[in-house]
Amino acid sequence: MVKVVTFGEVMLRLATMRRERFTQAREFEVTYGGGECNVAVSLAQFGVDATFVTAIPDNDIGQSCINYIRQFGVDTSEILRQGQRLGTYYLESGAAMRASKVVYDRAASSIAEIQTGDVDWKKVFDGADWFHFTGITPAISKNAAEVCVEAAKAAKELGLTVSADMNYRKNLWSPKEAQATMIPMMQYVDVSIGNEEDAEKCLGIAAEGVDVTVGEIDPEAYRPVVQALVDKFGFKKVAITLRESFSADDNGWSAIYFDGDEILVGRKYPVRIVDRVGGGDSFCAAMIYGLLQDGWDSRQVLDFAVASSAMSHTFHGDFNLVSVKEVMAVAGGDTSGRVQR
Amino acid sequence: MVKVVTFGEVMLRLATMRRERFTQAREFEVTYGGGECNVAVSLAQFGVDATFVTAIPDNDIGQSCINYIRQFGVDTSEILRQGQRLGTYYLESGAAMRASKVVYDRAASSIAEIQTGDVDWKKVFDGADWFHFTGITPAISKNAAEVCVEAAKAAKELGLTVSADMNYRKNLWSPKEAQATMIPMMQYVDVSIGNEEDAEKCLGIAAEGVDVTVGEIDPEAYRPVVQALVDKFGFKKVAITLRESFSADDNGWSAIYFDGDEILVGRKYPVRIVDRVGGGDSFCAAMIYGLLQDGWDSRQVLDFAVASSAMSHTFHGDFNLVSVKEVMAVAGGDTSGRVQR
Amino acid sequence: MVKVVTFGEVMLRLATMRRERFTQAREFEVTYGGGECNVAVSLAQFGVDATFVTAIPDNDIGQSCINYIRQFGVDTSEILRQGQRLGTYYLESGAAMRASKVVYDRAASSIAEIQTGDVDWKKVFDGADWFHFTGITPAISKNAAEVCVEAAKAAKELGLTVSADMNYRKNLWSPKEAQATMIPMMQYVDVSIGNEEDAEKCLGIAAEGVDVTVGEIDPEAYRPVVQALVDKFGFKKVAITLRESFSADDNGWSAIYFDGDEILVGRKYPVRIVDRVGGGDSFCAAMIYGLLQDGWDSRQVLDFAVASSAMSHTFHGDFNLVSVKEVMAVAGGDTSGRVQR
Amino acid sequence: MVKVVTFGEVMLRLATMRRERFTQAREFEVTYGGGECNVAVSLAQFGVDATFVTAIPDNDIGQSCINYIRQFGVDTSEILRQGQRLGTYYLESGAAMRASKVVYDRAASSIAEIQTGDVDWKKVFDGADWFHFTGITPAISKNAAEVCVEAAKAAKELGLTVSADMNYRKNLWSPKEAQATMIPMMQYVDVSIGNEEDAEKCLGIAAEGVDVTVGEIDPEAYRPVVQALVDKFGFKKVAITLRESFSADDNGWSAIYFDGDEILVGRKYPVRIVDRVGGGDSFCAAMIYGLLQDGWDSRQVLDFAVASSAMSHTFHGDFNLVSVKEVMAVAGGDTSGRVQR
Amino acid sequence: MVKVVTFGEVMLRLATMRRERFTQAREFEVTYGGGECNVAVSLAQFGVDATFVTAIPDNDIGQSCINYIRQFGVDTSEILRQGQRLGTYYLESGAAMRASKVVYDRAASSIAEIQTGDVDWKKVFDGADWFHFTGITPAISKNAAEVCVEAAKAAKELGLTVSADMNYRKNLWSPKEAQATMIPMMQYVDVSIGNEEDAEKCLGIAAEGVDVTVGEIDPEAYRPVVQALVDKFGFKKVAITLRESFSADDNGWSAIYFDGDEILVGRKYPVRIVDRVGGGDSFCAAMIYGLLQDGWDSRQVLDFAVASSAMSHTFHGDFNLVSVKEVMAVAGGDTSGRVQR
Amino acid sequence: MVKVVTFGEVMLRLATMRRERFTQAREFEVTYGGGECNVAVSLAQFGVDATFVTAIPDNDIGQSCINYIRQFGVDTSEILRQGQRLGTYYLESGAAMRASKVVYDRAASSIAEIQTGDVDWKKVFDGADWFHFTGITPAISKNAAEVCVEAAKAAKELGLTVSADMNYRKNLWSPKEAQATMIPMMQYVDVSIGNEEDAEKCLGIAAEGVDVTVGEIDPEAYRPVVQALVDKFGFKKVAITLRESFSADDNGWSAIYFDGDEILVGRKYPVRIVDRVGGGDSFCAAMIYGLLQDGWDSRQVLDFAVASSAMSHTFHGDFNLVSVKEVMAVAGGDTSGRVQR
Repeated sequence: MVKVVTFGEVMLRLATMRRERFTQAREFEVTYGGGECNVAVSLAQFGVDATFVTAIPDNDIGQSCINYIRQFGVDTSEILRQGQRLGTYYLESGAAMRASKVVYDRAASSIAEIQTGDVDWKKVFDGADWFHFTGITPAISKNAAEVCVEAAKAAKELGLTVSADMNYRKNLWSPKEAQATMIPMMQYVDVSIGNEEDAEKCLGIAAEGVDVTVGEIDPEAYRPVVQALVDKFGFKKVAITLRESFSADDNGWSAIYFDGDEILVGRKYPVRIVDRVGGGDSFCAAMIYGLLQDGWDSRQVLDFAVASSAMSHTFHGDFNLVSVKEVMAVAGGDTSGRVQR
Repeated sequence: MVKVVTFGEVMLRLATMRRERFTQAREFEVTYGGGECNVAVSLAQFGVDATFVTAIPDNDIGQSCINYIRQFGVDTSEILRQGQRLGTYYLESGAAMRASKVVYDRAASSIAEIQTGDVDWKKVFDGADWFHFTGITPAISKNAAEVCVEAAKAAKELGLTVSADMNYRKNLWSPKEAQATMIPMMQYVDVSIGNEEDAEKCLGIAAEGVDVTVGEIDPEAYRPVVQALVDKFGFKKVAITLRESFSADDNGWSAIYFDGDEILVGRKYPVRIVDRVGGGDSFCAAMIYGLLQDGWDSRQVLDFAVASSAMSHTFHGDFNLVSVKEVMAVAGGDTSGRVQR
Repeated sequence: MVKVVTFGEVMLRLATMRRERFTQAREFEVTYGGGECNVAVSLAQFGVDATFVTAIPDNDIGQSCINYIRQFGVDTSEILRQGQRLGTYYLESGAAMRASKVVYDRAASSIAEIQTGDVDWKKVFDGADWFHFTGITPAISKNAAEVCVEAAKAAKELGLTVSADMNYRKNLWSPKEAQATMIPMMQYVDVSIGNEEDAEKCLGIAAEGVDVTVGEIDPEAYRPVVQALVDKFGFKKVAITLRESFSADDNGWSAIYFDGDEILVGRKYPVRIVDRVGGGDSFCAAMIYGLLQDGWDSRQVLDFAVASSAMSHTFHGDFNLVSVKEVMAVAGGDTSGRVQR
Repeated sequence: MVKVVTFGEVMLRLATMRRERFTQAREFEVTYGGGECNVAVSLAQFGVDATFVTAIPDNDIGQSCINYIRQFGVDTSEILRQGQRLGTYYLESGAAMRASKVVYDRAASSIAEIQTGDVDWKKVFDGADWFHFTGITPAISKNAAEVCVEAAKAAKELGLTVSADMNYRKNLWSPKEAQATMIPMMQYVDVSIGNEEDAEKCLGIAAEGVDVTVGEIDPEAYRPVVQALVDKFGFKKVAITLRESFSADDNGWSAIYFDGDEILVGRKYPVRIVDRVGGGDSFCAAMIYGLLQDGWDSRQVLDFAVASSAMSHTFHGDFNLVSVKEVMAVAGGDTSGRVQR
Repeated sequence: MVKVVTFGEVMLRLATMRRERFTQAREFEVTYGGGECNVAVSLAQFGVDATFVTAIPDNDIGQSCINYIRQFGVDTSEILRQGQRLGTYYLESGAAMRASKVVYDRAASSIAEIQTGDVDWKKVFDGADWFHFTGITPAISKNAAEVCVEAAKAAKELGLTVSADMNYRKNLWSPKEAQATMIPMMQYVDVSIGNEEDAEKCLGIAAEGVDVTVGEIDPEAYRPVVQALVDKFGFKKVAITLRESFSADDNGWSAIYFDGDEILVGRKYPVRIVDRVGGGDSFCAAMIYGLLQDGWDSRQVLDFAVASSAMSHTFHGDFNLVSVKEVMAVAGGDTSGRVQR
Repeated sequence: MVKVVTFGEVMLRLATMRRERFTQAREFEVTYGGGECNVAVSLAQFGVDATFVTAIPDNDIGQSCINYIRQFGVDTSEILRQGQRLGTYYLESGAAMRASKVVYDRAASSIAEIQTGDVDWKKVFDGADWFHFTGITPAISKNAAEVCVEAAKAAKELGLTVSADMNYRKNLWSPKEAQATMIPMMQYVDVSIGNEEDAEKCLGIAAEGVDVTVGEIDPEAYRPVVQALVDKFGFKKVAITLRESFSADDNGWSAIYFDGDEILVGRKYPVRIVDRVGGGDSFCAAMIYGLLQDGWDSRQVLDFAVASSAMSHTFHGDFNLVSVKEVMAVAGGDTSGRVQR
């Protein structure tokens, strides 16, 4: 069995129910999630040996987080129990033209205060094939960024494939700050994943002429971006997710994939949204899975990744709980949603 | 008032809430349902004197089932209290391209172990006009099949109209087994109902060239099937439901109806799905209701049946809780869903 | 800060959850709402000093109602605590072609038994800019109608702008009764708001050739109505909301607005419905807000009002909880529903 | 099988959850109940053929009430569907020294407006053995009182045993009004049931020196009351329930019973309260059941009635859902609450 | 009407339901509370004009907090909207011998970063009679302590009565730190309230020989403490709450009160606990209320305060929602919890 | 770290909420549990390396069970995925004198159909210190009994300590059948645990003169039983749990323990019950934990075990989620349930 390690943030996620406003909420749905954690969980559902590394406080909320993650089969034994609090985010699900809202509450979290040397990367990466991180972790704090570099470098040296999901977050840093941190890290990265905004904000390479708020998106518009990414950073593979937001209920979802040779355009899925958070993460997980399969060609890899991440929009919570078999059925063309008895 | 008797299975239905996965569920919605039971309940909502016959264990789960059914006005006084367990099914509601899943848990149920002679059909059918069963009951066990034959035969002899919903279930038997059991029973059947797959699997008569997983369905494709069914089994009337599965959220729903003379095509309704289970059963109930009305022509019967079963997709649980007045409004053309104050 | 006063009814609202039928409900969602109350709440979300005047019984249910309203920042200090009961309404949310149902239970409510002289309008209107009422209040009882006239007259005399939402309710009175009461009140009204049915039923002026149950609505059909309203009643401004009911889940929503000079047609929004009740009230609130802003032209007023009331369909309960900033974003063209982080 | 008829009120009951205050409630638990209805339901759980007669509006709330009652096996076919509304009561469950609160909302209910002649008592009583009513029904309205007299008289003439639960409600009438109505009705009553306050308020016969708010109650204090009741009204049997209220959570529960010959004192049960409403009604039902059994002596009757009504405090809602077998076990001495596997 | 101002902390409170462990929780109950806020809410239920002053972030969680508080009638118009986050606490309710657990998450909260000069105390205290604070606020941060001193001093100068609830929290500071901050503040305090531990930890005056973990508490043990408090700090009145913890479900609750002249011992109430948090705060509120009533003697004040705070244990959430009338009934001796109809 | 292996049954547990009857339930709480599984979970909370071995069907319900167990840190990697269904049990929580009810639904479960040779015990026991099973597993089926013997024998041969919880279930077998199976297995058992009924029913050794349904239990009555068990079966240690059932809400809980030398009597805890199921299992787990600690004397072992299992009654579900630290506090004497901040 292949083994994948991810490193980064996990938060307590407190979501209103039934599309209620925060001011209406008398209950919050309690789950846990975060970019790199979501990737690990999705990989574990595919049967991959997935290890998630982070720092979590040694209190009951921290333990609840551990329990929540490991129920889905992720190896949590390398998680550090230190620091004072678990980052939290509040989610209000939108509807129709009313946008969903996320309120972040990350100040003073354990992951922000992690230090280089806290994790024994040699031990963590023992037997591992792949390392994945996202642009959120370096954005959280200087400390977190340094540990991220430490990890990526160690992974590269130990021969793992390294993937990065750019995941630009404007509430965490400016494009200038992002680029100052992210660009030097790219030397360790083999596979780059991101959406149309990430490449520009994190790496300084813009997709010209794309308006993400309206209408049909032309994948061709992204071709120059891909070429620039490969030329500048030496990525072996590049994938870009494409989201069309028709409303808070309905999105279009697809991706393009450059396999080092040609650019493939994925099928576009209309998605009726149950929970939109984690869509990009599930795409990363499925890309990693596909690239680790023997004998899959680029088309198979992309089809699997797009189908899997489209399906991830149908699950409450950050986690994509879909199985390989289920993804295969959809990627194979059956999007009918017929009852499986 | 007309009186209809149905015989067959009822199960405890345990469904996840809010489209959760089984692995996410910390609560199950508890309802009860099953093909023939669903038909009886829908008829009772129309004001029909509906009697449902089955076997249910003499324990608290069995009693809860009885109570659940009789709240909707069905006569449960002929239900046998015997055997060791109530069949159960687990339902995970899908979303978008993620299919809903049903896990059956029917081993050793009371209905599977029923025996000929257990029911006094003469008493049960006293004063009744119509008997209905489905292809699920004979598929459950040899015992259940024998009692089904016993019932159909008795009904026929006592002058009741007999209807059968083919309802092929691939997890219960093979087409070969189904045909061996079902074909001999057809001699007692006046009205045959089924979907595009049932006729082929249960009766060996295929609808050529229909792909149920994609696109627009052409009702004309079903015409040869209808003729073959009438020719071979002598049905007086044949109805076939037509479902287009665009996704787990959105289906198209219609039916065709052969009244012994001409073939009518029903209006096609787009249905936004609240709960998809029981759609076919509600169609049967409405067909029976329509055929029992004085002075309704075939168009009225079909329009009522299609509208009623389209509306059944909007109710949680197996049961169709719509009233005659509500069906009439929709069949009459008002599908606007405007608030009724 | 501007100050707006509304007078009228508030009810206990008991709604089934998850689109359940009344017969399935084992729990009711408890909220409170009513035309004029809803207007006050929406205005308070916009930062307006909003006072709601009504009569509520001096019992625990009445107090719960007060608490519910004032949490959203409405001034409830002028509410009378008298009479024997709070009017109630039961709501069953429909789905697809199944219509939502409202069962009113208003007999002997406190507001129905209010008497002229109970409210000290001079005190209530002190410092106020605007008074708003709807056609529901006069319809409740002769007493309520008399107090409504008393209020409108006092407001007019004290120099407030007066707006009225016609809001015809066929279960409360006949068109003949409505017109006998409403037409004499129009002398105090500056701004008239209503839907396509209200003008005809309450004021005797019909919009010819509009079928509200199907298809695309042509705003031009309403032009003669507007002219007649201005000619006959001297309204300074007239607005008419336009609802297209495709199903209980999906509506189209827009409005036309005559600003005394020209007729403007609003943008039409497709709305995926979370809760449809209170749509017209939220339109009134946003119209009042817009008309009270310095320097807004008619287009801005209408765009704000249509966007706000379109968004009101996405909130559970009668109340529109949207903020000025959120409305501005949608009115400005971003209906993508993208997550706001 | 014996057949019992009860006549009176049933209400929609809206209760806060988890001992919340009304002002905290965002959901109400929806059940239905009322004195005579509760008696019928408890009898149906004992296997008795129980018919409940009342008047309920012909709307969806009324239908929901019917469905709710008949799920427990009560015959609802004699219920009148007329009038404008179903009476409602709101319940806030107390805790410790905080008292539970009931807010009644009965104005203009269907049962209050029932008229003599509406019910065909000869038909209703056909085959019946027993008729039961309570003092609440005559208190609701003059109309309801007249129908109650009509029923009691008919029952007596047709040879049924008649029982009455005095059930004085101070919010419905004064002792003077109660006595003016109740005393003349006693000529039809064979079995009188009530608590320590009822005899005084409804029939003018006081239990001297009993303070119900504190401490241990001496059953001997009730002996003079019993004698006076028999002497004055000719009751064949008299039962008085004894409640000691230690707190909203813990009560003591017992009864005394005069069988026409001697006075028996029941066992006193400590009851940890889940839901206190309906305790007296469940005692009436169990008394009726016991008195209808062949060969039960007075001790058996009383023990059964006290045990059953003690157990009724453990069920949410007005209804006592206990079975004969369960009551027998407790009456037989096993109050251990051990798990029954 | 009297006016009371309180200043201090309010937090988002996230509680597990049904006595679940944190690790079991998939939902949190969402309420808001904190010492001084709780006092203001309880006073508002008594009809007092209560103003609560704090600092809350200008985001949606902050607004939800404002709405939550003002629904109960507290004046929130003086609350500052500044800083980065709302302090949070997690509550797991215990049962039997399993202790309830609180996890605080207060780092970087708005109230901790408040600064002197942020509040215009002259304006806030305009027309006010009383100022109340607790020992938690000074413990949160040096900034909060300074603002607390600023407020107490201003209140004293403006002639308000000042009360302080010592409320020692060992997770916030050591006794040494507490005393260094608290003792100098006592010069502004007229009324001192606390439990048996507070006087020792905050003010350095111990109640010798009291073991709070077991058995019956002797109020006499507290007499030396009271005298020392008066002698050293010049308090005009001193009250000490007495809690006996038999289990997480059952406590004993009382208090002693020194009115400047004699020491009175309150009645001891057994309390079955629904929610234990906020007991001391509700005692403070009721003491303030009693002391502000004309003509109440010390016995009345103490009886009211003990009864009110005993009853506060029966409400979910921090807030005591009891009314004056309800407290009076219990203080008057009726602890029977009988249903109030 | 010590390692413990348990083998046996785990079931889907479907429980009514809020002490509802089965007939009232519209939702079931979904958890999983069973004797040996419960022991493993409790040990994992203590930090022990606990492995649970069973057979579970390879469907979604089975996977949900796995996920549920492993969230609490138990090693589920040795669980077999085979057979057709997961055994189920339905739980209705009682109250006061109303007993809780369990309805078992175990027919045809995977564990019942397990076969010798399915588990590689040598591999499973590698590095393990202790093996535990209960009397339920051998009672399920002949197959399960054979595998249980196979496991116990292998454990013994490999030098593990073996403990057995007798756990007699009258619905699974008769005393005669139990003894025929259980007695031969005792040769492999070092530590015998059971309640007062188990020794008699499973091993034929009665505790004379104990009435479990009422009153205070005298531990001395159990001394002859202990001696007989040691004499006849050669147990090194024997523990007997003592439950006094005062009601479904309140029990007394203790145990006696024979350490091979003397008999110790545990402290008796009054337990207010949240969920009673799994009490005996949690006692076993804590005994095993204590016996595996270096330097604990018999008193420490017993005190830990009784305190832990008393606390287990405060958790919803079968699992005891208490930590070593929490047990230590209670065993050390603090049963006050005071809030831990």
